[in-house]
Amino acid sequence: MTFDEAQRVIQDHFKPVFLGEEEVVLLEAYNRVLNEDIVSTLDIPTFNRSTVDGYAVKAEDTYGADENQPAILKVSGAVNIGEQPKVVLAKGEAVEIVTGAPIPEGADAAVMVEGTERESDELRVFNPVTANENVMKKGSDLKKGVAVLKKGQVLGSPEIGVLAALGLTKVKVFKIPIVAVLSTGGEVTEPGKELPAGKIYDINAYSLSTAVIESGAKPVYFGVVPDDKAALSKALQTALASADMVITSGGVSVGPRDYTPQIVDSLGKPGLVVYGIAVKPGKPTTVGFIGDKPIFSLPGNPTSALLIFYLLARPLIQRLGGRPVAGMKIIRAFAGSRMFSAKGRRTFVMVKLEFDKECRLLADPVETGAAGAITTLAKADGFVEIPENEQFVDVNQEVAVMLFRSTGKV
Amino acid sequence: MTFDEAQRVIQDHFKPVFLGEEEVVLLEAYNRVLNEDIVSTLDIPTFNRSTVDGYAVKAEDTYGADENQPAILKVSGAVNIGEQPKVVLAKGEAVEIVTGAPIPEGADAAVMVEGTERESDELRVFNPVTANENVMKKGSDLKKGVAVLKKGQVLGSPEIGVLAALGLTKVKVFKIPIVAVLSTGGEVTEPGKELPAGKIYDINAYSLSTAVIESGAKPVYFGVVPDDKAALSKALQTALASADMVITSGGVSVGPRDYTPQIVDSLGKPGLVVYGIAVKPGKPTTVGFIGDKPIFSLPGNPTSALLIFYLLARPLIQRLGGRPVAGMKIIRAFAGSRMFSAKGRRTFVMVKLEFDKECRLLADPVETGAAGAITTLAKADGFVEIPENEQFVDVNQEVAVMLFRSTGKV
Repeated sequence: MTFDEAQRVIQDHFKPVFLGEEEVVLLEAYNRVLNEDIVSTLDIPTFNRSTVDGYAVKAEDTYGADENQPAILKVSGAVNIGEQPKVVLAKGEAVEIVTGAPIPEGADAAVMVEGTERESDELRVFNPVTANENVMKKGSDLKKGVAVLKKGQVLGSPEIGVLAALGLTKVKVFKIPIVAVLSTGGEVTEPGKELPAGKIYDINAYSLSTAVIESGAKPVYFGVVPDDKAALSKALQTALASADMVITSGGVSVGPRDYTPQIVDSLGKPGLVVYGIAVKPGKPTTVGFIGDKPIFSLPGNPTSALLIFYLLARPLIQRLGGRPVAGMKIIRAFAGSRMFSAKGRRTFVMVKLEFDKECRLLADPVETGAAGAITTLAKADGFVEIPENEQFVDVNQEVAVMLFRSTGKV
Repeated sequence: MTFDEAQRVIQDHFKPVFLGEEEVVLLEAYNRVLNEDIVSTLDIPTFNRSTVDGYAVKAEDTYGADENQPAILKVSGAVNIGEQPKVVLAKGEAVEIVTGAPIPEGADAAVMVEGTERESDELRVFNPVTANENVMKKGSDLKKGVAVLKKGQVLGSPEIGVLAALGLTKVKVFKIPIVAVLSTGGEVTEPGKELPAGKIYDINAYSLSTAVIESGAKPVYFGVVPDDKAALSKALQTALASADMVITSGGVSVGPRDYTPQIVDSLGKPGLVVYGIAVKPGKPTTVGFIGDKPIFSLPGNPTSALLIFYLLARPLIQRLGGRPVAGMKIIRAFAGSRMFSAKGRRTFVMVKLEFDKECRLLADPVETGAAGAITTLAKADGFVEIPENEQFVDVNQEVAVMLFRSTGKV
C-alpha cells in the first residue's frame, strides 16, 4: 500500500466522534478548544466612555472656539472613574472627566485638558469638538447579541481576554482525548529498572507519550506488555476500553513473534485496514479500527515510530480533540548533500539544519548508523520527503524540511 | 524614549538570575528546560544486536556461497530476544536469531532468513555476508561517556526519547518563573462579579496571564487592586516578594490618579528605568527594576498591553526560565490597504490576514473603532511594524506580520 493509499484508507475509516465537553475556569482554558459559540451578553462598553482626560461638554458649546476666542464654560462638577455620574450637564457647563470615565447625561463630547485653561470654575476651551468626539460610544466595541467566538476556536491570550471582557469566568471546551500508549517486544525494559543482558530500555513509550501531549491529548502509559499473545490481547482490550485511541510500538516486523497485527484484527470490526506501508522508514506500520477507535501499531525503531506518529496519528488526535489539523512546521532549506530514496517507497530523510558561510540554511542527512539508532532522534531537526518516483534529491536542491520542533536555529 | 532605547535600557538592567532547579519525572518533562548536561551512562546498544530475522553465523563460513554452491551450516540452537544467548557458535554452525536479539559469542554476522533454505538442522546459505553485516555493534548508536543533551535544551519528544534510552526516569530542569499579574484602575471589575454602572470587566489580567503561560512561566493573579496609593503600594510589595517578575496594567496614562509609576519608583533601587516609550500603541508603558526583579506597568488598553508584553516582557520571562529567546512567528504578506504610522513613533498596526482571489496573503488593518477596543484582540491575527522614519506602508507593499498565534489560515 502506498503512503497516499494508507492516508486515504485511514481517513475513510476514521469518524471524529465527539468525546464530550467539560467546563473549565478561564485561567485554565489556555490551548483548549471552545465547544460553544460565544455571543456577547453586553454592550461593550456598557456606557459612553471618555477616551481623554479633560472635560465633558456639549459639542455645540465649543463651536467656533479658537486661540483668540475660546469658548467659556462653567465647571459644574466632576465624574469619578468607575462611577455612575451624579451630575447632569446643562448648556454652557463642563464636567471634569478622566480617561475611561462615563460621559454624564447632557454631554455628548469631551475636550482634552491640554486644549483648555481653567481658573477656579471658569474653563476656557481653545479647540472646538464635534458630537461624539473623544467618546467611545456604548456598544461601539461590541454590541449585545453579536457572535464573538466560534465553537472550535483554540483559546489563546486574545480569545481569553475577550471572554473576560464579557464577564465570563468559565467556558465550555472539548474534552481532551485519551491516548493509550503501550510498548511490545521481548527485548524492551522500562526505564528506571535494571537493564538485563540482551535488553534495551523502552524509548517509544516516552517519546510517543510526549508527542501525544504536543498533539493536545493525554497519554496513558500502559508500560511494556510481556511478549505473549494472551497478555498482549488483554492489554489491548483494556487500552481500548479506557482510551479513545491506542498506540503500540515494536513487534510489527516479520519476526516469528510479531503477532500484534493478528491480535488487533481479532479484537473487533473493521479490524486491520493498513498492513504495511511503502515508506522508508516505517514500512511495518499497521493501522486498525475497533469500532470507532483507531489502533496504530508503529515500528520499534524510535525514529520511525515518531515519524509515522507525526504523519498519520497526530491528525486524528487533533480532530478527536476538536482542533484544526495543524500540519508540521515547514521551513525551506537547501540539500547539503545528495539524499537517496528507497526504490518505490516514499522516503523520509532525517536532517539536521545548519547555516553555511553564506548564511544559506542547509539540510544535511543525519547519519543513522544502523537501524534503530536512538541518537538520530536527538540529532535531527526534521525530515525531508522524497516522492516514490524520484531517486534522489540533489545537493543544493531546494527542499521543504518538516520540523520536529521549533529549533533555536531558525 | 524610542522603542530601541527602551529595549536597550531594559537589557542593561536585566540580570537573568538563576531561579533554581527541580527534578521532574520524564513523562512530565515536556517543554521544560534541562538544567544538566546529559552524558551517556551506557553503550547503546549494550550488546551486538541483529538487525534481521535469520541466523547468526561466522562471516567467513559464508564466503564464496552463491545460488549454485550454498554454504552448508549446522543449526546448533536459537537465541531468544531479550535474553543473554546460552549458545556459543563454533565453526560451521548457525544459530537462529530475530531482529533485536543479541548475536551469540563466536558469531560476527547475521544472514537474512530470505536468503536461506533449511531442512531439519541443515541450513543452506545462498548469499555470503561480511563481518559485522546485519549487526548493530555494541555502542555504535551511543558510546558510554558521550555528551547527548546539553543544559538549556528544551525537552520535546525526541529528547525525552533519548533520556528514556539511557534508562532515566527523572531529570533536572529549570524552575518555572513566577509572574505576578495585577490590574489597576477604578473602573475595573473582576469577571464573574456583577458589573456596576460605569465599570468594565478586567480583561488584561486574563489575556496577560495566558500570555505568561505561553511564555513558559506561571502567572499568579493578584486581582484588581483598589484605586488607592496605599493599597497599590502594598499589593506591589507583596507581588515582588512572592514572584520573579511583576506585570501591572491600567493606570499609567496621564490621568490624575495614575500613580503607579511613582509607587514603583519608591519601592527600591534602581526603580523606574523606562517612563513612556515613543510607540503607538503602548506609549504610557513604564518599566522598573526593584533589585533584580522587573516590574512592567502596561497600558489599560488590552491590545496595547498584550502587544507590549510580547515585545518587551516575554523575552525576559524566557530568559528567566532558561529558555532560548524565541521571537514571534513572522509571516510575509502584502498590505491590503495603506497603513499609517504615528508621527515620530514606532507604530504597530493590528492586522487580519486573508487570501485574495489570486491566493496572495493580504494583511488588512483591523478597524480599532475607539481606543481600548476589546474586539481588536479577537479580530487581529498579528501586527505590522512601521519604523519611526516612515510615514506609511503603501498598499501592496510586502510586509512582515508578527503573529499573535498560529492561525488556521497560514
